[in-house]
Amino acid sequence: MTQSKPTLFTSLSPALLHLYDLNNSIVVIIDVLRATSTIATALHNGAKCVIPVDSVAKCIELGKKIDAVTAGERDGKIAEGLEYGNSPFEYPEEFIKGKTLVLTTTNGTKLLHMALERGAGHIITGSFPNLGAVCDYLLSQRQPVILGCAAWKDRVNMEDMLFAGAVINRVKEYFTIHCDSSQIAATMYSKAKKDLYGFMKEKNATHYHRLTNYGLEKDIKYCLTPDLANVLPFYEDGKLAVHGKQ
Amino acid sequence: MTQSKPTLFTSLSPALLHLYDLNNSIVVIIDVLRATSTIATALHNGAKCVIPVDSVAKCIELGKKIDAVTAGERDGKIAEGLEYGNSPFEYPEEFIKGKTLVLTTTNGTKLLHMALERGAGHIITGSFPNLGAVCDYLLSQRQPVILGCAAWKDRVNMEDMLFAGAVINRVKEYFTIHCDSSQIAATMYSKAKKDLYGFMKEKNATHYHRLTNYGLEKDIKYCLTPDLANVLPFYEDGKLAVHGKQ
Repeated sequence: MTQSKPTLFTSLSPALLHLYDLNNSIVVIIDVLRATSTIATALHNGAKCVIPVDSVAKCIELGKKIDAVTAGERDGKIAEGLEYGNSPFEYPEEFIKGKTLVLTTTNGTKLLHMALERGAGHIITGSFPNLGAVCDYLLSQRQPVILGCAAWKDRVNMEDMLFAGAVINRVKEYFTIHCDSSQIAATMYSKAKKDLYGFMKEKNATHYHRLTNYGLEKDIKYCLTPDLANVLPFYEDGKLAVHGKQ
Repeated sequence: MTQSKPTLFTSLSPALLHLYDLNNSIVVIIDVLRATSTIATALHNGAKCVIPVDSVAKCIELGKKIDAVTAGERDGKIAEGLEYGNSPFEYPEEFIKGKTLVLTTTNGTKLLHMALERGAGHIITGSFPNLGAVCDYLLSQRQPVILGCAAWKDRVNMEDMLFAGAVINRVKEYFTIHCDSSQIAATMYSKAKKDLYGFMKEKNATHYHRLTNYGLEKDIKYCLTPDLANVLPFYEDGKLAVHGKQ
């Protein structure tokens, strides 16, 4: 029996994902503000599944076809033809339980499809609201891990890196980490963890700035809080559903 | 007269450079271990100019043609057919003064040529040994700045990011910085600045590890020390020469 630890790498942008070998790896899709936080929340609140699609047109088409809830934003507003937005607060249990959510997002969905095309072993989604569930899964599987930050139009962003760092700080003893991006993420998280919201504000993170301009401070605070929606969204057959749940 | 400050962005990898508008910008090529440190050192010690080329073959060919010193390494050893390596210690004044150095490096040269192709306004090279000269130039020009990290085979690396952070910490008041990569770099540098070498070691940075395996701790220490070779390498007509010197 081998004692060697599996590897862990962090890809800070979809434009860097090709540098890593995704085969036989678990790829964690990270889009903290707000796609993967909302996915965890909807599933935690009983959604049957979440189907991520990459365009508003596909979202409308699929929503009609399977009679699902359609959601997505462009430039901070619900996209024309869709019913709901990207906020986790739009998906309480009394609304979403038992329903299918078709969600279109730009950065997160793009990265998920890239991971799929590049032959990822397994794909899950990660965010602070389901940090514990992600770490537990990674620790239980002992397979190579790629933490994939969705970033913003390929530009590295603060919050996805901080989440990667949070995961690394919890699991690092069990992985071989020869990856400067991972070391940077872990160092940044250690620096920020006492007050993630305050850190984002102090550093004038671009996404903090963007969402605050839309009046979404409440969303940011929720999306930076660990373990409020602690389920594991697992991607299979085009859908994200809670792992282990039939 | 406008009071608006020019923008500053950090590109953490050549694979991200296309995200930034290089026109009318000063692009700082950063390849701390060791290309841009060695370039600053050779020019500081009186080299006439440094010509960066992207292959060993080109280096040999050009070296013969113009009777120049040829240098470059592959996998930590002087490349076959070349005379010298990548270490700044190989270029003391008594050797390099008045000579032309043709240098082939992988990451730094690639990034420089990308910046050229993408229409960079001006191209300079930066490293800790010429940190002060770089900052003085950026402050004197008041033009948009792109800090371009050469990284390692497109993977983000610690030392180039730290240098970007060092520049940002010195010039930030004079620029508009809406760029998470820059905020991350500045935060990392603030954390590391008391002991850059110790920080690289503690974080087991990949390049620290690689060069230490070749016995090059002395090179790493030199390349992390500010202002030991304080000149400004300026790229023009295929050559890097000291700015303002005829």
